[in-house]
Amino acid sequence: MSRLVNGVKSFSTAASSLLADASAAAARSVRQPSSFQVFRDVPELRQLRRKLIQNDRTMGFVPTMGALHEGHLSLIREAARENTDVFVSIYVNPTQFGVNEDLSSYPRTWDSDVEKLEKLNEELSSLGACTGQITAIFAPTSKVMYPTLPPSSEIDGHGSFVTITPLARKLEGVSRPVFFRGVTTICMKLFNVTTPDRVYFGQKDVQQTVIIKRMVKDFLIDTEVRIVPTTREADGLALSSRNVYLGARRRAVGLTLYQALSAAAEAYKAGKASRDDILGAARSVAERVLSEQQALSPSERALYEVDYISLADPESLEELDLVDFKKGAVLSTAFKMAPLEETNPGEDCGLGDGKVPVRLIDNMILQPQS
Amino acid sequence: MSRLVNGVKSFSTAASSLLADASAAAARSVRQPSSFQVFRDVPELRQLRRKLIQNDRTMGFVPTMGALHEGHLSLIREAARENTDVFVSIYVNPTQFGVNEDLSSYPRTWDSDVEKLEKLNEELSSLGACTGQITAIFAPTSKVMYPTLPPSSEIDGHGSFVTITPLARKLEGVSRPVFFRGVTTICMKLFNVTTPDRVYFGQKDVQQTVIIKRMVKDFLIDTEVRIVPTTREADGLALSSRNVYLGARRRAVGLTLYQALSAAAEAYKAGKASRDDILGAARSVAERVLSEQQALSPSERALYEVDYISLADPESLEELDLVDFKKGAVLSTAFKMAPLEETNPGEDCGLGDGKVPVRLIDNMILQPQS
Repeated sequence: MSRLVNGVKSFSTAASSLLADASAAAARSVRQPSSFQVFRDVPELRQLRRKLIQNDRTMGFVPTMGALHEGHLSLIREAARENTDVFVSIYVNPTQFGVNEDLSSYPRTWDSDVEKLEKLNEELSSLGACTGQITAIFAPTSKVMYPTLPPSSEIDGHGSFVTITPLARKLEGVSRPVFFRGVTTICMKLFNVTTPDRVYFGQKDVQQTVIIKRMVKDFLIDTEVRIVPTTREADGLALSSRNVYLGARRRAVGLTLYQALSAAAEAYKAGKASRDDILGAARSVAERVLSEQQALSPSERALYEVDYISLADPESLEELDLVDFKKGAVLSTAFKMAPLEETNPGEDCGLGDGKVPVRLIDNMILQPQS
Repeated sequence: MSRLVNGVKSFSTAASSLLADASAAAARSVRQPSSFQVFRDVPELRQLRRKLIQNDRTMGFVPTMGALHEGHLSLIREAARENTDVFVSIYVNPTQFGVNEDLSSYPRTWDSDVEKLEKLNEELSSLGACTGQITAIFAPTSKVMYPTLPPSSEIDGHGSFVTITPLARKLEGVSRPVFFRGVTTICMKLFNVTTPDRVYFGQKDVQQTVIIKRMVKDFLIDTEVRIVPTTREADGLALSSRNVYLGARRRAVGLTLYQALSAAAEAYKAGKASRDDILGAARSVAERVLSEQQALSPSERALYEVDYISLADPESLEELDLVDFKKGAVLSTAFKMAPLEETNPGEDCGLGDGKVPVRLIDNMILQPQS
């Protein structure tokens, strides 16, 4: 295993340009990881999948954009618990990034991703027959995933797309109009390639979970969608590939998303049902922390903008004035963490030295209550 | 077999309303046809499909909107030649009809469709082991195919869609902006339900063949697209479900599409490569026939409008000024046959008494030549 990781390390630094694929390293490496196969193209993966079906094995699929963290691993663990085999895809999908969005700054970490998956397979194999294992990594090139036109990042650009509206226009879709078109398009392709018995998505991206469930239903896709609870740090911060850009100062302030949502969830649990009561609790946390930060000097503070705080129906994502206790609701929020204005010598400013703006999202499900 | 056909006949006349499905009759019928099963929903069909896969049988899929004619049968014969099993879907897809288009006037002919398929299976079984047979008819309800939102027929309406642009905007897409969105959306669903080894489409709808091939490629769908030559009457008229609306007078004049295309194809074969030379030959036929008709009295003539005559690249469908002899081209045309202005006692005016406007399309492939 370590030989593979070392073997690809020298190449991966060159793979950071916009066009190079995160996983291009895999193509150059002669060695395969010891416990799973890496596939760069479709036909061989289909062959393996066919063999699994013929042998009555079940397969759970976990699509990722790499930069794997404990959140992804929790999806894979759940997939291994429910299936004999797990396929993981690692592909940074260009069509879900807008023209001015952070495709180029999205972390590409092939070496450590493979290492984490190898370690996880060791952990899974130690559990014996009661759990499955990762069998295949699918790390395609963009030419494989977008074989004809270069994919458009313009909302009215040409291409072959799956669109799910109005769901894709709400919440995250307001500031990121092409995002969910990119997600549904790439997921349809990945599902067609892997034909999974079950697919696994994290609760963290709640709108994505709602849209994928809708896509599977509307397009009669023969798979089950499993949603796995958000993995959080001890203090509550939701894990995200983007957290590596935060650094210590913005990380501390970034916890405000969780605190604001917790305050709102508390209000709901205490019997509040109106939008003003529930979202008011969240907003007052967000506003208080921001004023505290603004009172600090530029070398001490971390500023942010609240993009939205939403209280919505769990299936349609329509904004609610009043929560129906029988149905519950989705509470969700997005903050834009601004770049640090001034940094201090020796300060942990995260990948990109605190200059990268970081958009954080989080959510909580308000469960039905009587 | 005849009992089934009779058994459903009494119901099918009531099924002509916009909302009733063409195949609703199948749901009421207790009997199954003798040589294939009719499926109204997905799970049982998937079970059959799984059994076929386990037994190493291959399946060819022929999607139709019913109103079967010899053209459809030629698709099924080809599918039976190449596969052990053939699935045929019969579903009049609402999303490929525009708001003001002819969904309500599209023929619904369940009884005779089933009869034709039964007869075809007899023919196929007489050929013995060298050909497959129709195993399943999939005749779903709209609730099965569109389980959440009622499908929109507005170009900017909401829903879950597959879009393939710019291909879908050209030729037929100009006058029918939602048409190919509807076709690709329903075909993606049908392919997900049936997971065919091969799918069969007629050359008659040339733009559809180009778009489906593109969809299968771009979405990495695990199937092969087969295109079957256009079936024509002895005089050259391309078979179409809509021909039943023509009646004798408009049918005779409708042959002009074929004659115009033939004149253009002759010019190409004679060595012409320029747009003006090739399309000029087609246009002069279309114009001559129209003037001849205009000179006749309203009770004798059939008028039409030429929607387009196109000379386009075989893959991108971009209009060509000059044909590259190495690549060839697609020659295609659409005519709108106007309703008859005056009819005569006892005249064969077709279904709808000559009052239904009929849009006819036809095409020829200009093969590469040296």
